[in-house]
Amino acid sequence: MSTYACTLADVRAAAARVRGLAHRTPVMTSETLDALAGRQLFFKCENLQKVGAFKYRGATNAVRNLTDAEAARGVVTHSSGNHAQALALAARLRGVPAYVVMPRTAPAVKRAAVEGYGGQITLCEPNLPAREAAANAIVARTGATLIPPFDHPDVIAGQGTVALELLEDVPDLDALIVCVGGGGLIAGCAIAGRGLKPDLRVFGAEPAGADDAARSKAAGRWLPQTGPNTIADGLLTSTGELTWPVIRDEVERVFTVTDDEIRAAMRLVWERMKLIVEPSGAVAAAVALSAAFRALPGLKKVGATFSGGNVNLDQLWW
Amino acid sequence: MSTYACTLADVRAAAARVRGLAHRTPVMTSETLDALAGRQLFFKCENLQKVGAFKYRGATNAVRNLTDAEAARGVVTHSSGNHAQALALAARLRGVPAYVVMPRTAPAVKRAAVEGYGGQITLCEPNLPAREAAANAIVARTGATLIPPFDHPDVIAGQGTVALELLEDVPDLDALIVCVGGGGLIAGCAIAGRGLKPDLRVFGAEPAGADDAARSKAAGRWLPQTGPNTIADGLLTSTGELTWPVIRDEVERVFTVTDDEIRAAMRLVWERMKLIVEPSGAVAAAVALSAAFRALPGLKKVGATFSGGNVNLDQLWW
Repeated sequence: MSTYACTLADVRAAAARVRGLAHRTPVMTSETLDALAGRQLFFKCENLQKVGAFKYRGATNAVRNLTDAEAARGVVTHSSGNHAQALALAARLRGVPAYVVMPRTAPAVKRAAVEGYGGQITLCEPNLPAREAAANAIVARTGATLIPPFDHPDVIAGQGTVALELLEDVPDLDALIVCVGGGGLIAGCAIAGRGLKPDLRVFGAEPAGADDAARSKAAGRWLPQTGPNTIADGLLTSTGELTWPVIRDEVERVFTVTDDEIRAAMRLVWERMKLIVEPSGAVAAAVALSAAFRALPGLKKVGATFSGGNVNLDQLWW
Repeated sequence: MSTYACTLADVRAAAARVRGLAHRTPVMTSETLDALAGRQLFFKCENLQKVGAFKYRGATNAVRNLTDAEAARGVVTHSSGNHAQALALAARLRGVPAYVVMPRTAPAVKRAAVEGYGGQITLCEPNLPAREAAANAIVARTGATLIPPFDHPDVIAGQGTVALELLEDVPDLDALIVCVGGGGLIAGCAIAGRGLKPDLRVFGAEPAGADDAARSKAAGRWLPQTGPNTIADGLLTSTGELTWPVIRDEVERVFTVTDDEIRAAMRLVWERMKLIVEPSGAVAAAVALSAAFRALPGLKKVGATFSGGNVNLDQLWW
């Protein structure tokens, strides 16, 4: 394995660091989904993780890996999704401030969620330069450490603990299917999974409406995501400088699914497994159920991520 | 403990009988719900049971406890809810027929569910005499065994395995809260739980709109449910000849909650625990969160049932 942002040893260190802080989430199975997928599926339930998403692992690892002096000055991010909540809780549990920059257009529910975990919100104009400027101003003022949502060695190593635990519970997995947004989860899982088990096959799962990783793999070079359009709102971003090389070299293929396939998989998980997954959280399951994936020979036992369960319950999703 | 329809030994025999057929469901916890309840709660997730409800345990125990000759002639019921599906699957897995009598007004989705598990449906007029007559005709014709939804020793013993497993996982529980419809679950759990641990306190949980057990406990004599009106459609029936004596003697008190409390608890479980529970399945949680239950002193660790997760996902519940 080439040199990436982190190693299997870093993921192991992250596992020790997050133990007792992050849940060791259960692995769930369903005969119904197995029958539809034509093989045995093992779902790692990060929808049952604290804050409702795997993001809490990476945020916790990053916050816990700061020195006391660094930590005391706090942490900053300008993500407004699950990572912001995760970072706020991780910081609160270390007793240090978390500064979260959000566009002034962010929904009230997201602001309330971050504030509920003790995060201090700074509102800014809804564009990336404004968000970066606001975050940099906080760093300049407070000396806080910027913890981005995926392109950071400690975040990637933290997310890799998902694969570490899954392979401890189901050591004879043939493959993993991991959803891809910025790529922190799949990069960490590929490094951990293939580090532990070099013949493990790792596949990416993307919405067709945000398929930068699939296109990048096909082109053999990094391509950005532009104009994403999908129900899977956790997977809109491009992969990063640190995550893309891992995807390029360690991920066999990235499969895409339509929003209809995502919605159908999500409903199936709610209905048959009685688990709430958000659309992004159902993308790996949708890939497992797709004709293209089913056609792959030689995979008896496949692990897949339920990456999160934070979903608006005031709307019908189908 | 007086003489009831079954004993702790029967529940243990049921546990051996259903092993490998029913799921050993997980026990889940939530810091958010603990904070709201003012104590530690341990939820036994029968929403993750086969067929999506605890009913599968009792049905399986009853079907497996038949002799081969009895089983070959099949089983009958005239329940049309989760018990019908549970009995159909339990029979199919023993390779014997299940005859299910349903009112011709039963929703298509319930008919399809029973048929999906291989049950043979007989439609009848929508009243109890017609249902009983149709079931008796099937018994006369086929020699099948009638397995009612709750008032049967093997069914009660099967449901009692819920408490057996919960106490194996969390031996130092101070109390159980169990929802009450016909009373099969609470009777089995009280027999098993107090058999194992005589100082265990067992509480019932009922919707205010179907509070026959609460009224019966208050009156000290069996009272029927008439004109039930609640969102918790699995808890409409009166308790039975076999279940009532256990409730009378072994259940300390039956708490009632309003439909608004049930709906709020259900939403909290979906939102914070990411678990789909049906309204009936959230009634024990609603009691745990109620002011009346919170006011009880001396209960640090309380087990509660998520009894089922079969809910119409095409409607908003709040």
